[in-house]
Order: sequence, then C-alpha cells, then structure tokens
Amino acid sequence: MSNDVPTKADRTGRRGPTIRDVARLADVSIGTASKALNANGRLRPETRDKVRRVAQEIGYRPNDMAQSLHRTRSMTVGIISTDSFGRFTLPIFQALEEQFADQGIAVFMCNATDDPARERQHLDQLLGKRIDGLVVTARRSDKRPAIGPLANNIPIVYVFSQADDPDALSLLPDDEGGASLATRHLLDLGRRRIAHITGPERFEAVQLRHRGYDLALRDAGIAPHPGDYLAGSWSEEWGRDAVARLFDGKAETPDGLFCGNDQIARGAADALRERGIDVPGRVAIVGFDNWEVLATAARPPLSSIDMNLSALGREAGERLLAMIGGARETGVRRLPCTLVIRNSSSPQGTAK
Amino acid sequence: MSNDVPTKADRTGRRGPTIRDVARLADVSIGTASKALNANGRLRPETRDKVRRVAQEIGYRPNDMAQSLHRTRSMTVGIISTDSFGRFTLPIFQALEEQFADQGIAVFMCNATDDPARERQHLDQLLGKRIDGLVVTARRSDKRPAIGPLANNIPIVYVFSQADDPDALSLLPDDEGGASLATRHLLDLGRRRIAHITGPERFEAVQLRHRGYDLALRDAGIAPHPGDYLAGSWSEEWGRDAVARLFDGKAETPDGLFCGNDQIARGAADALRERGIDVPGRVAIVGFDNWEVLATAARPPLSSIDMNLSALGREAGERLLAMIGGARETGVRRLPCTLVIRNSSSPQGTAK
Repeated sequence: MSNDVPTKADRTGRRGPTIRDVARLADVSIGTASKALNANGRLRPETRDKVRRVAQEIGYRPNDMAQSLHRTRSMTVGIISTDSFGRFTLPIFQALEEQFADQGIAVFMCNATDDPARERQHLDQLLGKRIDGLVVTARRSDKRPAIGPLANNIPIVYVFSQADDPDALSLLPDDEGGASLATRHLLDLGRRRIAHITGPERFEAVQLRHRGYDLALRDAGIAPHPGDYLAGSWSEEWGRDAVARLFDGKAETPDGLFCGNDQIARGAADALRERGIDVPGRVAIVGFDNWEVLATAARPPLSSIDMNLSALGREAGERLLAMIGGARETGVRRLPCTLVIRNSSSPQGTAK
Repeated sequence: MSNDVPTKADRTGRRGPTIRDVARLADVSIGTASKALNANGRLRPETRDKVRRVAQEIGYRPNDMAQSLHRTRSMTVGIISTDSFGRFTLPIFQALEEQFADQGIAVFMCNATDDPARERQHLDQLLGKRIDGLVVTARRSDKRPAIGPLANNIPIVYVFSQADDPDALSLLPDDEGGASLATRHLLDLGRRRIAHITGPERFEAVQLRHRGYDLALRDAGIAPHPGDYLAGSWSEEWGRDAVARLFDGKAETPDGLFCGNDQIARGAADALRERGIDVPGRVAIVGFDNWEVLATAARPPLSSIDMNLSALGREAGERLLAMIGGARETGVRRLPCTLVIRNSSSPQGTAK
C-alpha cells in the first residue's frame, strides 16, 4: 500500500505521513486513528491493531508523542478498595493521593466492600471516566482474583493486596522480614525463650510472620519451644488468654514475646502487669503494625514492627506513574518493615 | 425587546422562545447561553445574570430542564478532607461514596492536610474536572473559614466541619444532645453523683458536651458537684489521672462517669479496676464516639455515645444531591446521637 502514501522524503519534500494518512489507509475516522495511537477511548482490539499496523507500515510518527500522550490522558486515576477503608488502607491511600496530587492527577476513590458486583460496577464507572490507571488495595494482603485486562489496557497496581496473576504487579509489606527483625531484636536483648502469639492461621501474613520468627531463632541456634507458637485471634483478649496459657502454673516461662499485632501485644502486656511480671524487665514484648494510638497508650508503650504503609503507597504511586508512562512491571514486590522501639523492649529497661 | 421575540402563541403557533432566541437577545453564543442556564462551565457573573434575565423576560423554558441538567452534569463530586483522613472522616466518607455510587456519581477524594494552599490547589483541580458538587469534611467539628462562592456556584456541604458563613450548610452531630443522653442514662441507673471527664476545652465539642451534661443534671434537680468536671486531654492516661483525682483519698466519690471520649473512658475503667472498684457495680461509665475496636476491648466493654457518622454522611450526600438538583440549603443542622449500652453501664450489672 506504500505506493499511495507520502514518505519522509515525499514528492513535495514537505512532510512525512500524517494521522490523516493513517486514518485513510486503515479505513477509519481521524478520531478513531487518534484513539488507537494514543491508547485512549474505547475501541475494538481489531480496530486498534489495524490502525497501529498501518501507522508502523507507513512510518507514521506523531510530532511529539510525549506531548500527545499527555494531552490525551484524563489526568485521573482510580483507587478501589476491595473492602472497607480502614487503618491499613488509609496511610496507603493518603500517600497515593498526595503523590498523584503533586502530579496534577485527581483521584477517584471507590469502595467495593468485598462485593464483586460492586467492584465491577465501580470499574465500569471508572473506565467511563477514562482513568489513566488503577490502584487496587485491600484490608489484608491475601491473594484475590486479578481484575482481568481492562479496556484500553489501563495499568493496574495491587497494593496491600495480591492478585492471583503472575503478570500483575503486587506491592506488599515484607511480613517475614518484619517478623525476623522483631525476633532478632529480642535476641539482641539477651532473650532466649521467645514465644510468638499471633492471629488466625488462614492469613498469609500469619504464616509468613511465623516463618520469619522461626528462621531468626534457628539462625541464632535456638530451636523454637513446642507450645511457644500460639495462633488465635487478632484481639487483646487473645493476648491475655495466651499469657495465661504460657505463664500460669508453669515452672519455665518465656522471657520475650513477639506478638502478631499490637492488640495481642497490648493484651499480653496487661496480663503480665496484672500477674506482677515486669515488662520489659522479665519479659520484653514486640508487637506488629505500629498502630500508634494503641501502642503508645499501652503500659508500657509497645515496641512494634511498622509496615511502612505510607512508603508502600508512595511506591505504588511511582510504579503506576511509570506504567502509565509505558513501563511494564509485574510480579510480587515486598517492601521492608522497620522496628519502632518503645518501653516494652527498651534496652535500658531490660538491662540487668 | 419583546417585540422581536416569539411568544408562546407566536405567529407560526409552532413554538415558544428557544435558547437561540435567548442567545441572540443576550448577545452571546448559544454555548454561553446554555452554560449560563445550566449553571455549567465558567462564566463571568455579569454574563450569567444577563442571560438569565433575558431568559426570564422572554419566558424561555427548556424542553426538559431536568434532562438538560443531567446531560450537562459531569457526574462527579469532590470530597475534601481538611485534615488527615481518620476514624471520624472514614465512616462519613464511606457513606457518601456509597450513596453517590448508587447515583452513578464518581467521587474525587482530596486530602488538604490542614494546609490552605493545598486546599486551594485541590479546589482548582476539582473545578477543572467540572465537579457537580463538593463535600468538605474534617477531623473535628470546629468552625473553619468558608470556601468562598466557587466558579459555577457549585453547591458545597460541610460535614463534621462547620463553615463560618451563615449561608453555608453544615451538618454536625448533636454533641449537646448526646451528652444529655449519656447523663440521663446514668441517672436512670440510679446514679446521683456523676462526674464528667473530658478533653481540651478549646474544642467546641467539649463545651457542648459539658453543657449537655450540665443540663441533664439540672433537669433531674441535681446541682453538679464542683470538681466533678475535669477537662484534660483525649487520652487513656488522662482517664487514669482523673480517676486518681476523683477517688484517691476521697471520702465521697462519684457513682457515675460520663467521659468525653472512649479513650478517656477506657483509662478510667482500667484505673477503677486497678483500685478494686467494681464497674458498673459501684461506678457506671459511659464514653463517647463508640469507637468499637477500643470500646469492646475494654474491661468491661464500654457503653458509649455513637455520633452516627454514617447517617451524617448519608444525610450530607442527600443534601448535596438536592442542592445539585437546584435546592438551596443553609445553616447548621445537628443530627441526633444514640446510646450504645455495653457492660460498663448495663442495668443488670448495676442493679442492687
């Protein structure tokens, strides 16, 4: 077909092929050609492919591809939370919103409340608004069905949420690493019998934290005591119950507790205080989540593992922006946790 | 000017004045006339007023005003939180989002983090997106500077936030009524010396709750004890401190505590338990906020006043939709709180 198409050095010497040429040869309108070349608007895949094939064949190059992409972007992104917004979703969302706002991108926020029909409805609405990208977040990081390829191949980032699709990009906290960090900290304080009181085993995070605890102990040449791993619920009450099981009527008791979340840690601290067992003097405690309002109000205030959810949110924002710019990213990335030391495991309080 | 304008019974008998007539007589384009009549797009106020005056003079009526309004709406609204999203903002936001989603309206969510420059930036961005309406929400309900009239006169609802402008619509929980409810409940349990431990007095909510407590006592013929009103901070620690002040070394002590929030109530409950004072047997406690994760984990679980933030959010959504539809609403509306009874003031536990 190149015989009726102007080339870079065409007969007038004036110009290369234009979008008008692409449209004519692909037998579509200029608007459709533009949509296909800018990955903007809804088109049948066959149409998009045909336009792109023609554009490549005739060597079409837009004047300023970057500018053109920018022009055709809606400068909006969507965030879908697959369950209620809560204290895990919030810091992620705030970091995302801040980052997008800095780029002049407005954020549509949707709450799918764990209802697939509602999620579908939200997706349709967001696609109707021509979002440039999508972030999917959740209350917990267990695997969820991937949202299939969307219209226009809009990039998607899963954060604090994991898609069951190896081609998806999922960003998660490093639960295993965080648990190792907590356990090593207790070991560094000279603790040798460290129990792990945690939440329900069906959570992937519970399994990963258990593994991190286990590995840290074994690295230190310590075989975990049978019975020192107690999985239950995410509550203060379970923390108190677990302390009763570990301490009441026992000749040998733990000198360190690594708890799967701060509520469990707080319950454990209360139960130890009520038994006259000094924290951190006799038993040092580290929680997980670094839920400040709870951790700082505990007696003593709780050391805790911080999942750095704001950093996770910022990372998700950066990745999505890169993907909107054309980068392709896949796989599961786990970001490091950090340890926040408070009195429940302060080296001063535990020095003998 | 009516001499060159067709009237309802014009010479052809075919039609009344059209938007074309309005545009011609107002000396503007049809697009501008449409914008002015639909309150859509940016126009100088003089232009908008002129178009509307002309339309009224010649008796212009669009075919289907409702449909036309619908067509020109962007089907988006903005929510600006004037400070970080938190546990007060969240239920409001969730209720709003759900309601708007049901109407096919997408929600832009912005976080102004108490920074007026950032708020302005967000507003400009939202106006650029042609939002149909705006919700402003905050972490606390104290007065804030009103956002002046926006381009296009977009309706604004303040929720859990109060504008310093009598023409603005602000929706708030009825703090005074909630406090009276808590106090009357304690009175109904037979309590006669009820102390009020609360947060910092600079909060309007603290002042209103104090008044509600005071009024309920006086209505029951009880003069509040001097020294039984203790304002401090919003923390568990303050709850424990206040109990020490009220109970340690005192011959006469309160038999009821109304606490300004659940953290204070929880600290108070802990301090009483540690003194061997039975709750609710000897002292019944009611908190405020009904922050479930905290209230249910307390020992005993805390009765609390619920501000019904979800209902507040739904009400804000309804009002905004009405205003987008043309209704005008102003003033401060306070929605009722409700009492959630748990063990800290259960009638069973307190029966003697």
